[in-house]
Amino acid sequence: MRDFSQDHRWLSINTATLRKSRGVELPLPQIIEACARRGIPAISPWRDQVHAAGLADISKLVKLHGLELSGYCRGGMFPASTLEGLRAAHDDNRRAVDEARELNARCLVLVVGGLPGALAGKPEGKDIALARAQVRDGIAKLLEHSRSVGMPLAIEPLHPMYAADRACVNTMEQALDLCDELDPSRSGALGVACDVYHVWWDPKLQSQIARAGRERLLAFHVCDWLVPTTDLLLDRGMMGDGIIDVRRIRSWVEDAGFDGYSEVEIFSERDWWQREHGEVLDVCVERHRSVV
Amino acid sequence: MRDFSQDHRWLSINTATLRKSRGVELPLPQIIEACARRGIPAISPWRDQVHAAGLADISKLVKLHGLELSGYCRGGMFPASTLEGLRAAHDDNRRAVDEARELNARCLVLVVGGLPGALAGKPEGKDIALARAQVRDGIAKLLEHSRSVGMPLAIEPLHPMYAADRACVNTMEQALDLCDELDPSRSGALGVACDVYHVWWDPKLQSQIARAGRERLLAFHVCDWLVPTTDLLLDRGMMGDGIIDVRRIRSWVEDAGFDGYSEVEIFSERDWWQREHGEVLDVCVERHRSVV
Repeated sequence: MRDFSQDHRWLSINTATLRKSRGVELPLPQIIEACARRGIPAISPWRDQVHAAGLADISKLVKLHGLELSGYCRGGMFPASTLEGLRAAHDDNRRAVDEARELNARCLVLVVGGLPGALAGKPEGKDIALARAQVRDGIAKLLEHSRSVGMPLAIEPLHPMYAADRACVNTMEQALDLCDELDPSRSGALGVACDVYHVWWDPKLQSQIARAGRERLLAFHVCDWLVPTTDLLLDRGMMGDGIIDVRRIRSWVEDAGFDGYSEVEIFSERDWWQREHGEVLDVCVERHRSVV
Repeated sequence: MRDFSQDHRWLSINTATLRKSRGVELPLPQIIEACARRGIPAISPWRDQVHAAGLADISKLVKLHGLELSGYCRGGMFPASTLEGLRAAHDDNRRAVDEARELNARCLVLVVGGLPGALAGKPEGKDIALARAQVRDGIAKLLEHSRSVGMPLAIEPLHPMYAADRACVNTMEQALDLCDELDPSRSGALGVACDVYHVWWDPKLQSQIARAGRERLLAFHVCDWLVPTTDLLLDRGMMGDGIIDVRRIRSWVEDAGFDGYSEVEIFSERDWWQREHGEVLDVCVERHRSVV
């Protein structure tokens, strides 16, 4: 297992972690500058933040600072209740692949989507099996394009509390079953993003991480599960402040062959987004060394 | 599949559903009277409500109205960080078994517990594997007593969002693995409570319900998952108001041989606990017929 205690050469910052500074939206160029100033070697930006700043400018800025991208967030949201909706999702995902390619990301992270309409608070049905079939078909189709440009797709199993509205792929086992179906040769074109927040509770986690192996483990995300958790989406904790044994899970992914970045992804309306972003980054660096 | 549309002979009311009427705590005797008045044939009372009213009185009242108990809520909470704590949990669970026996309940429902201290907001560790081992050992020991008095134990897998503080058994598969380990002969002494709120998202649900079979399916609980859900514990929906395909899941448990009550268990601080309890019961009856 790699020793993280001496430096932060394996730290990546998911830019949603700094989405706000003292409660105010922080533009991506400032996030990038703040990371670069601290010698943080990698980031994983969100599409909306990239679009707001302009893809070309972000691409230049990333190169200027020599930053790597541990991932690009995010594609997915495949299910729809109309053919038009399915097509629109595919087209948007193709663009996400191309943007990830332009930014030279390690992978495009897929949050696959749930029941059509649910994210907007107006679910149009209850058929989660159908949504899952649409996800499988959507990934299969997207793979044709992503393979052709060499951009790996990382299915992120989301915590089951997001099954209705964000992602109907909810365990590592389910994600790996999809990978085996769509990429049986383990070519590297399809794998998983392992986010401790979503999977820490899973009694089969260790065995499924081993099953994933080096070829399928495309990203490793860290934060913490707070007790109590007061909001389903925006109450994630800083590593060390909750009950996830982050280091143990990292030992499992490294035993399986993962040697990439440890990416900090924290959505925290009540705490970390209310702090000054420089302070948040300093704590990320410290916890990366002491807890992750 | 049984036809529920014509009457409510298979309806049971978990008494937590009527914990409050217009926001004010409602004593168990009044809950029982209200159920009996509507010809509801079964209830599943909570221990704290029974204790507040007195076990002997509740036992008499239940007999007076000829009510059946689809379950007794609840035993469990096995993990502890001290030997004394483990022993206290065992003693309390023995008492719960005896109370369930006195009330002639179909089973004692087990919410097995999570990380010691977490429910009180002060987790004492992060070792969920240890908590799971304590749960296994605790159930094994309790089974000696529960078998001797003929009270079946129903392990309730809880939604993974409760893994830290309420139950570290989080899927039907995990619960059934425990059953197979501790009661390999499928004697009827150990099984599961299938609550649609906790398991609806599980991609393996149908196959695991089939695996459970008649001997292991001791209880079936219904409510709904709201979109959005605003509180992790107290924002359950009435059947039909959310995205769970309750009837499909009922068809699976009935295909597996379950022929018991469909028990309504709704914790709803913002909605149903604010209404008058008679109105809530009337809606339960109507939705039992039209949605379940």
